[in-house]
Amino acid sequence: MKIWQKNTDVDRFVEAFTVGNDRELDLQLATADVLGSLAHTRMLHSIGLLDSRDLTSVQEGLKQLYREVMAGEFTIDEHVEDVHSQVELLLTQRIGEAGKKIHSGRSRNDQVLVDLKLFFRTEIAHLVKNTEVLFDRLITLSDTYRSVLLPGYTHLQIAMPSSFGLWFGAYAESLVDDMEVMLAAWKVCNKNPLGSAAGYGSSFPLNRRMTTELLGFEDLNYNVVYAQMGRGKTERILAQAMSAVAATLAKLAMDICLYINQNFGFIAFPDQLTTGSSIMPHKKNPDVFELVRGRCNKIQALPNEIALMTTNLPSGYHRDLQLLKENLFPAFKSLNECLEITAFMLDHIQIKENILADPKYDYLFSVEVVNNEVLNGVPFREAYRHVGLAIEAGTFKPQKMVNHTHEGSIGNLCNAEIRQAFDAVIATFGFGRVEEALRKLVE
Amino acid sequence: MKIWQKNTDVDRFVEAFTVGNDRELDLQLATADVLGSLAHTRMLHSIGLLDSRDLTSVQEGLKQLYREVMAGEFTIDEHVEDVHSQVELLLTQRIGEAGKKIHSGRSRNDQVLVDLKLFFRTEIAHLVKNTEVLFDRLITLSDTYRSVLLPGYTHLQIAMPSSFGLWFGAYAESLVDDMEVMLAAWKVCNKNPLGSAAGYGSSFPLNRRMTTELLGFEDLNYNVVYAQMGRGKTERILAQAMSAVAATLAKLAMDICLYINQNFGFIAFPDQLTTGSSIMPHKKNPDVFELVRGRCNKIQALPNEIALMTTNLPSGYHRDLQLLKENLFPAFKSLNECLEITAFMLDHIQIKENILADPKYDYLFSVEVVNNEVLNGVPFREAYRHVGLAIEAGTFKPQKMVNHTHEGSIGNLCNAEIRQAFDAVIATFGFGRVEEALRKLVE
Amino acid sequence: MKIWQKNTDVDRFVEAFTVGNDRELDLQLATADVLGSLAHTRMLHSIGLLDSRDLTSVQEGLKQLYREVMAGEFTIDEHVEDVHSQVELLLTQRIGEAGKKIHSGRSRNDQVLVDLKLFFRTEIAHLVKNTEVLFDRLITLSDTYRSVLLPGYTHLQIAMPSSFGLWFGAYAESLVDDMEVMLAAWKVCNKNPLGSAAGYGSSFPLNRRMTTELLGFEDLNYNVVYAQMGRGKTERILAQAMSAVAATLAKLAMDICLYINQNFGFIAFPDQLTTGSSIMPHKKNPDVFELVRGRCNKIQALPNEIALMTTNLPSGYHRDLQLLKENLFPAFKSLNECLEITAFMLDHIQIKENILADPKYDYLFSVEVVNNEVLNGVPFREAYRHVGLAIEAGTFKPQKMVNHTHEGSIGNLCNAEIRQAFDAVIATFGFGRVEEALRKLVE
Amino acid sequence: MKIWQKNTDVDRFVEAFTVGNDRELDLQLATADVLGSLAHTRMLHSIGLLDSRDLTSVQEGLKQLYREVMAGEFTIDEHVEDVHSQVELLLTQRIGEAGKKIHSGRSRNDQVLVDLKLFFRTEIAHLVKNTEVLFDRLITLSDTYRSVLLPGYTHLQIAMPSSFGLWFGAYAESLVDDMEVMLAAWKVCNKNPLGSAAGYGSSFPLNRRMTTELLGFEDLNYNVVYAQMGRGKTERILAQAMSAVAATLAKLAMDICLYINQNFGFIAFPDQLTTGSSIMPHKKNPDVFELVRGRCNKIQALPNEIALMTTNLPSGYHRDLQLLKENLFPAFKSLNECLEITAFMLDHIQIKENILADPKYDYLFSVEVVNNEVLNGVPFREAYRHVGLAIEAGTFKPQKMVNHTHEGSIGNLCNAEIRQAFDAVIATFGFGRVEEALRKLVE
Repeated sequence: MKIWQKNTDVDRFVEAFTVGNDRELDLQLATADVLGSLAHTRMLHSIGLLDSRDLTSVQEGLKQLYREVMAGEFTIDEHVEDVHSQVELLLTQRIGEAGKKIHSGRSRNDQVLVDLKLFFRTEIAHLVKNTEVLFDRLITLSDTYRSVLLPGYTHLQIAMPSSFGLWFGAYAESLVDDMEVMLAAWKVCNKNPLGSAAGYGSSFPLNRRMTTELLGFEDLNYNVVYAQMGRGKTERILAQAMSAVAATLAKLAMDICLYINQNFGFIAFPDQLTTGSSIMPHKKNPDVFELVRGRCNKIQALPNEIALMTTNLPSGYHRDLQLLKENLFPAFKSLNECLEITAFMLDHIQIKENILADPKYDYLFSVEVVNNEVLNGVPFREAYRHVGLAIEAGTFKPQKMVNHTHEGSIGNLCNAEIRQAFDAVIATFGFGRVEEALRKLVE
Repeated sequence: MKIWQKNTDVDRFVEAFTVGNDRELDLQLATADVLGSLAHTRMLHSIGLLDSRDLTSVQEGLKQLYREVMAGEFTIDEHVEDVHSQVELLLTQRIGEAGKKIHSGRSRNDQVLVDLKLFFRTEIAHLVKNTEVLFDRLITLSDTYRSVLLPGYTHLQIAMPSSFGLWFGAYAESLVDDMEVMLAAWKVCNKNPLGSAAGYGSSFPLNRRMTTELLGFEDLNYNVVYAQMGRGKTERILAQAMSAVAATLAKLAMDICLYINQNFGFIAFPDQLTTGSSIMPHKKNPDVFELVRGRCNKIQALPNEIALMTTNLPSGYHRDLQLLKENLFPAFKSLNECLEITAFMLDHIQIKENILADPKYDYLFSVEVVNNEVLNGVPFREAYRHVGLAIEAGTFKPQKMVNHTHEGSIGNLCNAEIRQAFDAVIATFGFGRVEEALRKLVE
Repeated sequence: MKIWQKNTDVDRFVEAFTVGNDRELDLQLATADVLGSLAHTRMLHSIGLLDSRDLTSVQEGLKQLYREVMAGEFTIDEHVEDVHSQVELLLTQRIGEAGKKIHSGRSRNDQVLVDLKLFFRTEIAHLVKNTEVLFDRLITLSDTYRSVLLPGYTHLQIAMPSSFGLWFGAYAESLVDDMEVMLAAWKVCNKNPLGSAAGYGSSFPLNRRMTTELLGFEDLNYNVVYAQMGRGKTERILAQAMSAVAATLAKLAMDICLYINQNFGFIAFPDQLTTGSSIMPHKKNPDVFELVRGRCNKIQALPNEIALMTTNLPSGYHRDLQLLKENLFPAFKSLNECLEITAFMLDHIQIKENILADPKYDYLFSVEVVNNEVLNGVPFREAYRHVGLAIEAGTFKPQKMVNHTHEGSIGNLCNAEIRQAFDAVIATFGFGRVEEALRKLVE
Repeated sequence: MKIWQKNTDVDRFVEAFTVGNDRELDLQLATADVLGSLAHTRMLHSIGLLDSRDLTSVQEGLKQLYREVMAGEFTIDEHVEDVHSQVELLLTQRIGEAGKKIHSGRSRNDQVLVDLKLFFRTEIAHLVKNTEVLFDRLITLSDTYRSVLLPGYTHLQIAMPSSFGLWFGAYAESLVDDMEVMLAAWKVCNKNPLGSAAGYGSSFPLNRRMTTELLGFEDLNYNVVYAQMGRGKTERILAQAMSAVAATLAKLAMDICLYINQNFGFIAFPDQLTTGSSIMPHKKNPDVFELVRGRCNKIQALPNEIALMTTNLPSGYHRDLQLLKENLFPAFKSLNECLEITAFMLDHIQIKENILADPKYDYLFSVEVVNNEVLNGVPFREAYRHVGLAIEAGTFKPQKMVNHTHEGSIGNLCNAEIRQAFDAVIATFGFGRVEEALRKLVE
């Protein structure tokens, strides 16, 4: 039974097509839907649209449902269209007519809008937490291997000395900028659309500031037309933020696949973390990182997919927007798994020492030699010419010593500063305030 | 148990991450995998790598498996990695050691390559068949409503008279060009990669022309490095072809959502094929077409997603390629459903007559009036000026008659020619030859 | 003459291909390049790599160049490869050998990195300023037309009453969230990569904090490998922020193209701001908004283009990155023009009054009637049923009064709150501090 | 002066915005525009809309213009809007009033449609010719280096022996499939839209088959609404075909950048074809191939850009479509240059011999050893186990001999068959028939 059914039955074929896999995806929104209703009904009571007795039974019923969702006991029946209908149905079965009143002053449109924003907040918090774990791992590895040198490449050509300290630390610092982008997505998500009804507001005297506070939102989506316009837009901005993290992971995975290759041979992983071949008995393939790379590249395609599905739609709700769940929801799981397995794998990474002893890396030190001449008073262009001619003549001899001291260089990684920058961004999210608000709502 | 396991156990976390949802997706490859093995083992026998007794038992075992797959009785056990391993496992359980020999002269790489090409051929045939049904529906509607006029818009501004005959017919002809693109994808798919092993060929004296013929391929992917390079590339080309069909459907759906809107009001659908609103009792929403539009826009994003996942990978297999199944396989189902439901809905479309009687459409006829003056000897620029001034002065009066006679115009739709062009493209696929080859293989 | 030329000449064909249109694009980087050198040479002096006399002549020479760039008198000679070489060449011609010393302790890699970040800061400031103008226009229009009603659509179906106040205000509020995303891009841009040399640091005792302060950056890109990794990443994040603004403009343009269509007829523009047709004398086409829509959709494609060009490149510089200028630089100009012309056109928009008097919009009020019954004690589901049956029976009669009072609704637009939110985001950029630093550098 | 100007002047700001860079891009359409008018006016005469004297002067005037365009003497005046207006203006200046009649029975919409299709045909022919040159180069290199072995990689791990013969030949065969996709684009382009006017046909008794034949099109776009719908769609399909070629080039460029890297060191290029570094005197960077890769990845983004700019636009012309020229036209030039420079560079490639003598490549031969055991009667799984254990024990000793004989393997490259397949696709285009028709039109 669908709540908009009147006297006609929708053809079964049409129904199957339109519902799609909403039931399955909506399960992930159950927590958010119950939280939204807890706040909405308290607000309805405050403006006289729900009497105290109904409020009490509705709140108790919803909190019971909340516990069931938390315990993994909530499902959506096959004949029920979506999570909103299922919650209303269960509530009505348990507490009677009062259950039907929770829809007053709402449309499914703002109900799903607020559910999505609550859900996205949770998912962002989850992603950020996993990013923190990976960040810590990278900084630790950078500190541990700060003095192990590595060839640095430009144009994929041997260029200058680098180090594992620099390499791990670079990916840590990359996550700092990624978190800036994630913070913007968080801010966009952390505004309350509830009360916008079908995107044109309501004739009920709703108190939207009250639900904003109850649900721990930082502010409202004020304009009700804009609240609805946030659908699709919020998803795209969030997908862009996820693509920033994904791009960092994909690049790290590409480096690892290269460095583990036998022609480079800079790193290795234990046998049990690599995979073999059905016909080549010597293979130890870095499948995990190939899959991290592939999955993260898929996530990088997500913002464009959302753009293609929403571009040129006039303002106002369109059913197309329902499909965005299909794209975004699995991406949360996938990106979290990529973050987790990357941190896990890095726990077992094996670093090769003395790589630069191989004479093929001698040229890495040509700039050092040029610079030393400059420090001794030779003009740069002249020193550059000397060394260039020595290389061509085959007489170039490097001293394989690196003495870099400036900020962010091999000898001065500034990992403390990078950690400080990371922590500063994370602190700005204000997850604690949100958790506190939600805790109060369900207690 | 995985076939590449030696003495070490892969960590469980890693295994879950790398297998992903391969088991589920691989089920769709079961038919193709059995067909490939039927052909491969006959070829192995022909070059002396499988004796006649083994061949007989292997062929019987595989044909039995084929019947089980057809009957929907084939599953992949949870401890088995993929469809190839499951087929080999079942065969070995049933016919003993001979079952293990079907992998000789193959790698999983060329096995999955040939499975994918066989599967894609089937899916293309399915898409083409559904496209034919929709094409017929559109041509029929175009013929039926050839004389019902419709406003034609440019810049979304009222422009010139159009007709339902033109409108339906345009989408039919669009499918002709879409099938040209699909034909290119078919040709790319219809070449045999089997025998390329891990992408570098085999020291066995394989007869690749024999498997090419047995599997009904039109030609070989000759170069074994190229055969492997086709992975990802084939998927992208096929996704591009699907995006052509999807773009046609999405545009039709957009037109329908506009024409069903009350400000246009050109068409309608019966109540049971539209959906209502949870708060607005008067709504009859065209959800089906919004979802067709959204799904088809998602399919339009697919080629780019594949490009992002494969770009800048050097030649040779990478595990990233496994993930492409996740993108493409559900898209077949989705596009087929969109084709089917569009044809179904068009069966019930209701056309409004006499739309142009409304005075707001008078200006549609301004070009007719200009052209009539030209036919009477007035230079075009002058006639244009006359009518322009009459419109500004509010004295413009059209004769609402349309007499278009040239090819493809309102009075001469050329639907027969369009059908002929469509049939000519479809005939080029040669589905019959492929079906005949496969029939022989399993009989 | 190229600075890396030694004894061999690069083939002319290769040179033309590799330089591409860099000379043309690099002109836009001239200001930034001179600023970077002003800061870098002061730092070189502070660490003893440039004596006081050289510093003085270099600073004077660079400030003179700065004034020439500002006056539009700077060009890149045809035989000079890029902006960096041109600046060095001019300086050396004018002040002699000291001019050659400005490259000490730098690579072209970090030179272009810092140029890009300085340039991006300027462009962001420009975009934000134009966004402010448009925001003001939208808020003013929202206030002006707050009581003019408009049909609100969902599924492109007539749904509920809306207003021009809501419609204009929604796009204003959309820009608030867009500025949150732009702020993240600003933060990523506002970190100093100078001193990272070719991406692996330098053996000179550079003082990177000093150049950070001189150039008004908020912080450093510490890790030198990450500083280089920011190339491409910064561009993508900035393009994503631009795509947020572009998406808002494109949606507004789509609404306008729809509302100006004769079937809607909600708005108009003066004749001189629309365009005609070569064959239809009555046409007044909204070409400006079609082009705003098209251009902004092109900008929405930009982040994906950058992703495709950078994905799967290992860490370290690759020449591919040079090509990103081609994508991004024209997009700044295009988006600024779109912002400007949209604000200009909105200055002349003509609003139709009394749209809802047309009986075809009666159903807009069905929810009002349902809600009024609810406020009178009828359960929602029952009221909904009543009105639904009245509509089906053709007996539905609305009172065309809208009394919405909650935050963000027709009667309570909250434009002051929206403006406050906008101003708060803009204030966070801190453009003033940056301008102040740069002013000091060149004075 | 614009042809649609009546009594009002369009604001200058609006004009600059709407014209954009059309004048510059339209120059590339001049040949096509003159050809289209040559055919159109002959048809107008055949249906009595142009008398014989006018026809003669118009044909002479157009042929003169054609010669001027060929000679590079054609320009578009600054006060003229587009190429169509310029041609009409020049013609009228030279032959008087008859020049104005060439627009009869056409709209700018079908005029630009036919111009684009004629232009695209020329560009496709150009791309195909450059592809043929590269194909020849690759086949020749494959034949020349057929016996020089190379490590083959899977998962970027050393896998099995490959050869330069296989490597070059794979890219040659890749171009065969790319040409299949290009052929589909050619077929879509090679249909005549002329006579569709503004997308709704004409009341003139146009003879569209006659212009189809005169312009050498294979068939008509019959339905006039579809003819217009081809705008944007044709561009996207063509861009997809270009992206296929681009993907092949990009992958080859990635391989080259990897193989030229010192850790691989499989190939080299002469000094004058590589570039140096401003700070590292030893660098010889493969900038050409990095730029081929970057440019080709940009072209791979093109179909998506077009999709984003056209998706969800209802049927009928929209001005957005004008902007597609900006994307596509430069891509032709860029892709042609990439094809040319790749062929040029490959002329100078230096191949390293005896790569596999290095012991690190011993494991490449593990499968050979396994297979030899199988050929001697050992079951595959058992042989695999033996070799695996030998590798783990460090006792594995390969015979570095490769004896591959099957189709497409190291010892049997099938380059003749690949060439035959390539030639067969090229022959299907039928460029000769088109050239012949156009030659007649202008002679």
